[in-house]
Amino acid sequence: MSEWYKSFGNEGDIVVSTRIRIARNIKKIPFPARMTAEHINEVNAIMKKAAANIPEDICGKLMVIDMNSVSDEEAGAMIERHIISPEFAHHRENKLLLISSDESVSIMVCEEDHIRIQVILPGLSLETAYEIADKIDDALSKEVEYAYLDQFGYLTQCPTNLGTGLRASVMLHLPVTSNNGTLSVISESASKFGLTVRGLYGEGSKSSAALYQLSNQITLGISEKAALDNLKSITMQIIKKENLDRAAINKITLEDNVMRAYGILKYQRILSSEEMMQLISRIKLGASMGIIDIDKTLPMRLLVECQPFMLQKLNGLMSPDDRDICRAKIVREHLE
Amino acid sequence: MSEWYKSFGNEGDIVVSTRIRIARNIKKIPFPARMTAEHINEVNAIMKKAAANIPEDICGKLMVIDMNSVSDEEAGAMIERHIISPEFAHHRENKLLLISSDESVSIMVCEEDHIRIQVILPGLSLETAYEIADKIDDALSKEVEYAYLDQFGYLTQCPTNLGTGLRASVMLHLPVTSNNGTLSVISESASKFGLTVRGLYGEGSKSSAALYQLSNQITLGISEKAALDNLKSITMQIIKKENLDRAAINKITLEDNVMRAYGILKYQRILSSEEMMQLISRIKLGASMGIIDIDKTLPMRLLVECQPFMLQKLNGLMSPDDRDICRAKIVREHLE
Repeated sequence: MSEWYKSFGNEGDIVVSTRIRIARNIKKIPFPARMTAEHINEVNAIMKKAAANIPEDICGKLMVIDMNSVSDEEAGAMIERHIISPEFAHHRENKLLLISSDESVSIMVCEEDHIRIQVILPGLSLETAYEIADKIDDALSKEVEYAYLDQFGYLTQCPTNLGTGLRASVMLHLPVTSNNGTLSVISESASKFGLTVRGLYGEGSKSSAALYQLSNQITLGISEKAALDNLKSITMQIIKKENLDRAAINKITLEDNVMRAYGILKYQRILSSEEMMQLISRIKLGASMGIIDIDKTLPMRLLVECQPFMLQKLNGLMSPDDRDICRAKIVREHLE
Repeated sequence: MSEWYKSFGNEGDIVVSTRIRIARNIKKIPFPARMTAEHINEVNAIMKKAAANIPEDICGKLMVIDMNSVSDEEAGAMIERHIISPEFAHHRENKLLLISSDESVSIMVCEEDHIRIQVILPGLSLETAYEIADKIDDALSKEVEYAYLDQFGYLTQCPTNLGTGLRASVMLHLPVTSNNGTLSVISESASKFGLTVRGLYGEGSKSSAALYQLSNQITLGISEKAALDNLKSITMQIIKKENLDRAAINKITLEDNVMRAYGILKYQRILSSEEMMQLISRIKLGASMGIIDIDKTLPMRLLVECQPFMLQKLNGLMSPDDRDICRAKIVREHLE
């Protein structure tokens, strides 16, 4: 197994990745907002021990990373790989991260909740991702007494996670529906089913790369299975709509759009992160529709590996100007 | 010899072509603005006979084209090749065009003046072009009595051509000075020397392809030699300035600009005439500066042969949308 962005999963032409996050807290220890340094140390100690006892057949051995030892650049690169949240990166003093070697499983300790189990897999893989997260949850529950009330379910710092503590999401590549103005319609229908759509790798709700995250918002009064089924059903409808919209585009206009992006990426010498995302989105669409013959894993791999921090993690620290030149070179080399 | 736009002449990195035009009128026949149909027939008869007597060692045998027989498309393609003026194309009833087989020499009969001798050669070639035009003028003067007054020189319909009747011009590719805002400075200095700069292949004074025509404006009280020397001297100064400006551009920015244009041209599927010119200008600069290794005659050849009428002359009549697709294909094929 390799990292999610290096693989092409089920429905990978549209579904880039699936993520499951489960929030848990430990009984009798205050929520993170009210924790003292001693509380953090206590939770860290509990989690170190617990992590060591998670059966290795679930996700291998979890590596324990002391977030104090992580540089700003490495933390930034973790955010870009979707392993940790920006909040966790920005307040990482005395925090622990538990992570599997393929990075598909990560557990943030003392982020918004004491325990945040995350499983991320390539493509549409809600059942498998949930199954792994659930097994880890079960294993941890044998080591740790969770804060739980029959009346509500699992207790969380923020009431929006109360109940299942589950957030399931899929990252969708929607270059056509996001361009023809129908994404807002999708977004509105999704919200009626308790789901939300938001842009990824971009400002606010816009996404430079036409990548959107669809996730469940309701955690109270709904079973995990119902939440997952609901998310999957809407995902399948969005896939169908994006595919219909793709089939309806004028062929030569689409080819022109894809081939221009390909031509620019093959020959440019200076490439900003923002422009890279726009162009990669176009060649991902082109690869999906058989217009260009490139490795289908390449677009997402380049998109993640050419983010500012990932680029520096893989190629050394650089000034912003040098990054744009390095990014240009790497993209050219991969398209040769 | 082939057409001017298919060859790379002296100083061809910057000077695309040289044009000489000599205006002459026949004594005792009214200027074109006041000619009757009989007068036109009379001039046509005189010119047919005179053309047949021009020594063939000057420019081969001149073909006589009855402009009544020329379609709108063919006339448009002649304008795009700079063989005739738009005015001549638009009012071509009963007009004659005399033209050499390589199209370097053309004589418009009854355009603004009875006789407009034009010589167009690739690159900077003022002396040679003038020499050819002068020989044709001499040969015609043996057949035709020119309207001439010692006090003024050759008489022309418009007083701006009175005297020598000579307009000499060079077509310059100035992608850098036209982009860095210094072209207006050049233009102002040129006007002090009786020269004018105007954009070609573009709206008004702008040129999509960064092609500018520098020409003399003064025909009275100045010898042909002085006018040509003056034009050549200013041309050499502009070449020097454009070259200095080219050398001063940031190397990677320039490469990026050139290679992106190259990448788009190699892969696009829909290409408007306007965008083609902008991109061709960038690859011409790239070829001049050794950034891309293409045949140096290719940019101007594509630029002329992909103009709307030339494209149809070479590839058949098409709708505007189909032209953009055909243009895209031809450009791709030439860059393969």
